[in-house]
Amino acid sequence: MGSPEISSDRLWSDLMTMGAIGATSRGGSCRVALSDADCEGRNLFCYWAREAGLDIKIDQAGNIFARREGLDPTLPPLMIGSHLDTQTPGGKFDGVLGVLAGLEVVRALNRADVKTKRAIEIVDWTNEEGARFPGLMGSGIFAGKIPLETALTFTDKDGYTVGSELKRIGYAGSAPVGGRDVYRYLELHIEQGDLLQNSGAIIGAVTNSSWWGGGTIKIHGENGHSQTAPMSRRRNALIGAAKLALEIEAIGARHEPEGMVSATVIDCLPNNLINIPHLCTLKYLIVHATEDGREDVITRIRDAMAKIAAETSLSTTDDYIRYRERQDFDERLLKLTEHVASELGYPSMRLPTLTGHDALNTHFVCPTGIIFVPCKDGISHSELEWCEPEHAYAGARVLLRAALVVANEA
Amino acid sequence: MGSPEISSDRLWSDLMTMGAIGATSRGGSCRVALSDADCEGRNLFCYWAREAGLDIKIDQAGNIFARREGLDPTLPPLMIGSHLDTQTPGGKFDGVLGVLAGLEVVRALNRADVKTKRAIEIVDWTNEEGARFPGLMGSGIFAGKIPLETALTFTDKDGYTVGSELKRIGYAGSAPVGGRDVYRYLELHIEQGDLLQNSGAIIGAVTNSSWWGGGTIKIHGENGHSQTAPMSRRRNALIGAAKLALEIEAIGARHEPEGMVSATVIDCLPNNLINIPHLCTLKYLIVHATEDGREDVITRIRDAMAKIAAETSLSTTDDYIRYRERQDFDERLLKLTEHVASELGYPSMRLPTLTGHDALNTHFVCPTGIIFVPCKDGISHSELEWCEPEHAYAGARVLLRAALVVANEA
Repeated sequence: MGSPEISSDRLWSDLMTMGAIGATSRGGSCRVALSDADCEGRNLFCYWAREAGLDIKIDQAGNIFARREGLDPTLPPLMIGSHLDTQTPGGKFDGVLGVLAGLEVVRALNRADVKTKRAIEIVDWTNEEGARFPGLMGSGIFAGKIPLETALTFTDKDGYTVGSELKRIGYAGSAPVGGRDVYRYLELHIEQGDLLQNSGAIIGAVTNSSWWGGGTIKIHGENGHSQTAPMSRRRNALIGAAKLALEIEAIGARHEPEGMVSATVIDCLPNNLINIPHLCTLKYLIVHATEDGREDVITRIRDAMAKIAAETSLSTTDDYIRYRERQDFDERLLKLTEHVASELGYPSMRLPTLTGHDALNTHFVCPTGIIFVPCKDGISHSELEWCEPEHAYAGARVLLRAALVVANEA
Repeated sequence: MGSPEISSDRLWSDLMTMGAIGATSRGGSCRVALSDADCEGRNLFCYWAREAGLDIKIDQAGNIFARREGLDPTLPPLMIGSHLDTQTPGGKFDGVLGVLAGLEVVRALNRADVKTKRAIEIVDWTNEEGARFPGLMGSGIFAGKIPLETALTFTDKDGYTVGSELKRIGYAGSAPVGGRDVYRYLELHIEQGDLLQNSGAIIGAVTNSSWWGGGTIKIHGENGHSQTAPMSRRRNALIGAAKLALEIEAIGARHEPEGMVSATVIDCLPNNLINIPHLCTLKYLIVHATEDGREDVITRIRDAMAKIAAETSLSTTDDYIRYRERQDFDERLLKLTEHVASELGYPSMRLPTLTGHDALNTHFVCPTGIIFVPCKDGISHSELEWCEPEHAYAGARVLLRAALVVANEA
């Protein structure tokens, strides 16, 4: 039994190899959940996990658990994980780092012939990204936040369901989803912001999540012939959506840097050159450091909707507004992350996460810790997303040390 | 042999019956080209045509020709027609009136036992509307303006082609498309504007088509995480599209009433809540009374694109610009329309058509005449589209009288 050490080369090689599946022209990846590329990525992960001697279990939500048995198999395991699915297109690191660093952690333990008291399970959660079906899904089902039956009927734009796509790609497993004890959950992730980069820290200990909001607005106009209807009588729903998108962006600019909001989704009907649109659907997403800030954004958006309806012949309706409240993460795991980083000589800082992670769901199951490493200029959900090899390595080293502590707790 | 007379009741009943196929909740119809509903509409038309003793021929473009033989079968026929496909949703009259009035014309001849020197063919042209595949299609192939092979590969948003959909609905005929002599073409249509209504005229003799233009603009931004990218660094392509849609509408307002332009189609990528759009495609359609006016609109749109690119961190590119030039219709048929209207006591006027009709294609094949009747408030491409029964009747009466003259010419 020696001292377990991460192989920086192997970790980086795995990241680049996984990134080659669904590779895009500008260096990103497109492995949208339950696509052929997601299937290939899962297959590769399972191959590597078996190569490392892990037992694989797939649950009915398609979550993959690769287990390294502990000295006491009756103790609830430490879980380490994240997701292999990406945005459309996405980068090579978001989610992937957390899964593949977990795999390298157990390989490091294997190489050093180190056993742990508790089992360690490396998890690939199904459909974290939400680029095709509603996101934070697999971990949400595991945590009891989304009923399995509901999730299996989630339907994409082309009419395919989660249930049928899980079967099609061969990942509709038989294990029940959740309902079992988990001791702790650790997730290593790129920051997706630029606080670490700007401060010079290499390790981030994530204190809390942010106040989110999101809404769907419908703008109602009236169909008409776009070659014959007089301009002054047109009730073009796209015009209302355009005004609203600009207002929403301006509200975001006003709240910067504490809060942000953009309209990012638009659907226009009938979306046919010769017919004036009668319905536009606009969706926006709010992130804010404070609950009051989030409420102010929602109020301003509603005011803008009313103003636009008054200025034009269009009407606007809120279809629904979603909320997600701030969560605060386990103080003990925060301190452990800081302690381990310090032992290894990495400067660390505490910071919030703006966006969602599977850890926001495991938080409801067990004490949970998120460890951040820098990503270049805070860019993610982009082919330009980048994590320096030494930062990926640093994160995996912190993860390994933290895992050794946690997995040996009684 | 008596005096042939249109049955107002039968014509109206047929219009309402056809409108019930693909009926929508607010009184319109949705029989988009080559859909199941289009198939049902075609089947009903063929049933009525056979009931009237007509011979049906379907060509490789799915155009349906229902022929009433003439005394001299060697003479090129008079064609009367329009289209049964609709917008999504559309009304009960656009196109449908021209086909079903043609059918009632031959029934009137049958009832009165009147033979004509030339054959009369009632035509339902495939996919005039362009709501699913590029429009003015069936008549365009017939006129040699669109190669059949090209049209058969037109693909809709879901990946279905014209060729496969024609086969699926059973209207991939065997007759060659076009390449035969046609003596004259007459098309009865609702005006889709409000000049007739405003002037009190009941019959419109269409002098010419308008100057059209249309374009596709791409607005390029950069993907990014919509929960973490700082507002000031977002390059949201949807924001550029929104600014441009507003500019285009303002340019249209400036040219009213001679010209009009709106953005009516928007496609946003990746159109995913959590990812800042990197690409928006915006499409617009120009109609203008003058060529200079159309050019001015195009210039102003390009100026707006440059201004928006300069103001934002986005770039804009013209994907392509389409043009369609003014066409002038046959003076003899114009005079005939006016003469017949006057004989029947209907006030008439000359006016242009702003939008396209299959007649714009048959114009390249033979002398062509378009007869307009009023539509309520000029509204069309809408479930609210409406033609008064007495106006449909008046149009069919003028069509019958004109057809009797033309079909008996040597």
